[in-house]
Amino acid sequence: MKIPKEHPRAESLRVREKLLKNYKMGVVAHAGLIAHGRGEAFDYLLGEETTKPTLEAIEAAAAALLTAKHPVISVNGNAAALVASDIVKLSEVTGARIEVNLFYRSAKREKTIERVLREAGATKVLGIGEDASARIQELGSERRRVDPKGLLIADAVLVPLEDGDRTEALVRVGKKVIAIDLNPLSRTAQLATVTIVDNIVRAIPTLAKIAKRLRTEDQEKLKEIASEFDNKRNLGEAIALINRRLSELAEKGTYISLLEMTKK
Amino acid sequence: MKIPKEHPRAESLRVREKLLKNYKMGVVAHAGLIAHGRGEAFDYLLGEETTKPTLEAIEAAAAALLTAKHPVISVNGNAAALVASDIVKLSEVTGARIEVNLFYRSAKREKTIERVLREAGATKVLGIGEDASARIQELGSERRRVDPKGLLIADAVLVPLEDGDRTEALVRVGKKVIAIDLNPLSRTAQLATVTIVDNIVRAIPTLAKIAKRLRTEDQEKLKEIASEFDNKRNLGEAIALINRRLSELAEKGTYISLLEMTKK
Repeated sequence: MKIPKEHPRAESLRVREKLLKNYKMGVVAHAGLIAHGRGEAFDYLLGEETTKPTLEAIEAAAAALLTAKHPVISVNGNAAALVASDIVKLSEVTGARIEVNLFYRSAKREKTIERVLREAGATKVLGIGEDASARIQELGSERRRVDPKGLLIADAVLVPLEDGDRTEALVRVGKKVIAIDLNPLSRTAQLATVTIVDNIVRAIPTLAKIAKRLRTEDQEKLKEIASEFDNKRNLGEAIALINRRLSELAEKGTYISLLEMTKK
Repeated sequence: MKIPKEHPRAESLRVREKLLKNYKMGVVAHAGLIAHGRGEAFDYLLGEETTKPTLEAIEAAAAALLTAKHPVISVNGNAAALVASDIVKLSEVTGARIEVNLFYRSAKREKTIERVLREAGATKVLGIGEDASARIQELGSERRRVDPKGLLIADAVLVPLEDGDRTEALVRVGKKVIAIDLNPLSRTAQLATVTIVDNIVRAIPTLAKIAKRLRTEDQEKLKEIASEFDNKRNLGEAIALINRRLSELAEKGTYISLLEMTKK
């Protein structure tokens, strides 16, 4: 399908095409398509841009990854489909390892996702096949199978697009969880240590860029940035922002899209 | 996948399973899965219930269908997947014809959807194969092919889950458009004659019930109900409602889901 450049939702449609292409390749699961739709709705409400409070969350996330002993980026189908090369960059900048961890696990799907990551430049991908030989029982489902060199020993985990149960379990076993979730009301958003309320297609490249800038700071300074971050307050600001945008619209009442309002 | 009864999102998960089953049958398109996700997000914000302003919209929609000369229910993949038997009931109560009209059209998919509707009790399904012999050029894409006994001559069309371009085209050729759309900000919602901001799994059965009650009213009374309805004001109320729910949450700030708030 050709998307006209001037289409008001061109970028959003391009992302969707990329996701569908990866769905056909076996990277993205059915559930990943539905989850993407949910994300689109919240992204629309947020104005499809990285907001100021979100930039603060991204800074805290970068600091948390840079001060961790064993940072890990947990990759699922949608993340590999949409931001594989940015994940590789982020891994290089922060030293975080890349581990594939899927809800709908199959040997074939794992291998396909590994290939996508390697083609994007990853030299090492954890959690594939027999490598996922350790268990974190709390995680439940097939996700409990983790790599002893990765998620098992990780002290900080970046989870783009995560379900609430897994986030809760990761926090319970004592890991710092950095979540990327467009819904500031989700269980994942509320339970994570740091929640980045943003679309992964913007959040991961921005996180890599900010991490690159921060990595020359000394560890004490970075620990301060991470510990001073208040996730609940930050989420409150994201909710308030959606709220203000809706207020303006409800007052005007008639046909004006939120996006048009943002551009003014 | 077994869904535990006490799961807070059990109903929503059951609907999702039904959609996936129909996706595998070829009824639902990829895009339908993403669209469903978007709907889920807005439904969550609305509290997953039919609100008071929405009930007014449903009443106006019933009146519009009952006073039309040639009412038609336009059916796409998601609608057939989720509410086939309710569509049949609504058709029986209002005398509206059922026509299949797809963005991703194929002979096989049309036939599959026809079968789903017939198994749900439909005795006549328009728009299948050669029956879609007329054209409404304004509709664009494969959707322009319509049935001369249905959409071509329709004066009122119910479109569950419609895209903005098609809604605009239907209005432009002079038809009354009754849309069901969970996003009160969408172009479809803003352009339709009557917009029902609700999940189709609740809206269609409720519409059938209200139409059954109203059909004994005299035509003048029904025309009054339809003409007095103010769609823009009604949409404003839906937006304000989401807004109030978010305000409450932003104030409380911490981990309380919108759904839990509703139940209080």
